Amino acid sequence: MAQLPGIIQKLISQFNKLPGIGPKTAEKLAFFLLRQPRESLIDFADSLTAAKDNLKICSQCQNLTETDPCNICRDPNRDHKTICVISDVQDLMALEKTGSFNGLYHILGGTLNPLEDITPDKLNIQALLNRVKSDHIQEIILGTNPDVEGETTMLYLTKLLKNNNLKITRLGRGLPMGSDIEYADEITLTNAIKDRKEL
Amino acid sequence: MAQLPGIIQKLISQFNKLPGIGPKTAEKLAFFLLRQPRESLIDFADSLTAAKDNLKICSQCQNLTETDPCNICRDPNRDHKTICVISDVQDLMALEKTGSFNGLYHILGGTLNPLEDITPDKLNIQALLNRVKSDHIQEIILGTNPDVEGETTMLYLTKLLKNNNLKITRLGRGLPMGSDIEYADEITLTNAIKDRKEL
Repeated sequence: MAQLPGIIQKLISQFNKLPGIGPKTAEKLAFFLLRQPRESLIDFADSLTAAKDNLKICSQCQNLTETDPCNICRDPNRDHKTICVISDVQDLMALEKTGSFNGLYHILGGTLNPLEDITPDKLNIQALLNRVKSDHIQEIILGTNPDVEGETTMLYLTKLLKNNNLKITRLGRGLPMGSDIEYADEITLTNAIKDRKEL
Repeated sequence: MAQLPGIIQKLISQFNKLPGIGPKTAEKLAFFLLRQPRESLIDFADSLTAAKDNLKICSQCQNLTETDPCNICRDPNRDHKTICVISDVQDLMALEKTGSFNGLYHILGGTLNPLEDITPDKLNIQALLNRVKSDHIQEIILGTNPDVEGETTMLYLTKLLKNNNLKITRLGRGLPMGSDIEYADEITLTNAIKDRKEL
C-alpha cells in the first residue's frame, strides 16, 4: 500500500489532534488547505502563532486580552460592583453575546473535579476572594454550568463567599427557549417549577 | 458587548473558512489551540506551509508527491498496464488502503459538471489519452463516484477511450457491506441485481 507523503501525513495528524476532528475530517481539511493559494496558508500559519504570542491573561478577571486589564475590566460604563463567576473564556463570550449583563467577570479556569485532580487550589479562586475583599463588590453571580462539576463548584464558592455581606446569586434554571415540555427531562422540569416567576 | 481580541477572531475566522467547520467549532478549535504550548502551535504552523511548499504533482498520474514521478508510478512491482482513473487524491488513498489494487492511477482533478463550468478541458483528460497511447496500457478502470457527475464523466471517458483496443471497466456496484437489503435504495438494489455474480 502506497503511503501519503510524510509531509501531508504530518499536517493531517496536526488536525487530528484537535478536539472533535477525526482522521477522515483531518484528511479532508488538509487536502482542502493544500488546494488554497500559498498566501492564505501563510496567513493561517501566522494567525496560529500570533494569537499565542500576543495574547495575555487579564490580571483581574483572567479574560484573554491584548491589553491588561482587559477591555471589560477597564470599561468605566460597566457595573464594577457585580461579578459573574464563570469557568472559561468561551462562557464569557456567550454571556457577552446576549448583551444583557453589564458587570464584570471572573474566570475560574475550570470547575472542581476531584476525579481529574482539579481541586480548589488549581482554580483561580484565591484571586476571587481578594477581589471580593478589596473591590466593594455587591453581587456575585455564579455562572458555572448546570452539571455535576459546575454545581459542586457553585456550592463550594457559596460556602466560601457567604460571610462577606454579599448578594450571591446563580443563573436561572428552567426550560430553554424553543424546547418542548413534553420532551423536557425531569430535572429541567423540576428546576422550571422551582424557579417559576410571578407574572 | 465586548468583543474577543481581534487576534483570536482572526484565528477563529481562519478555522471557519474550512469545509464543515462552523463558527462554534471554529471557536472551540481556536481556544483549544491557545491552551497548547507555543512549540506545538509553531509545529502546526510549519506543517501548513511546509506541505504547500514541498509537495509536487506527479507528472504522470497527478498524485501529490514529494518526488516526481510519485512512489506509485515509480514502483517496478506494480502493474503498469492497468490504470485506475479517479477524480482526486483522496480517492487514490481510499483505494490504496484496501490493498487490492496493484496498478497505476490517473487523477482527473474533478468530475464533469457543466453547471459549475467543469468541462472536459478543465480535467486532466488529454494526459490520460497520451498515457493510453504511449504506455501499452491494457485496462482502464473507471473509478469515479457513482453519482450524476461521476457517471457523466465515466460515459464521456468510455466514448473517448473506446477505440484504443483497451479493456474498459468500472468499479462494481451493489450493496455495501453491513447494509440491510430492506433499507437499501432502489438504484442500489437494481445495481446489485444487475451486477450479481455467479458463485
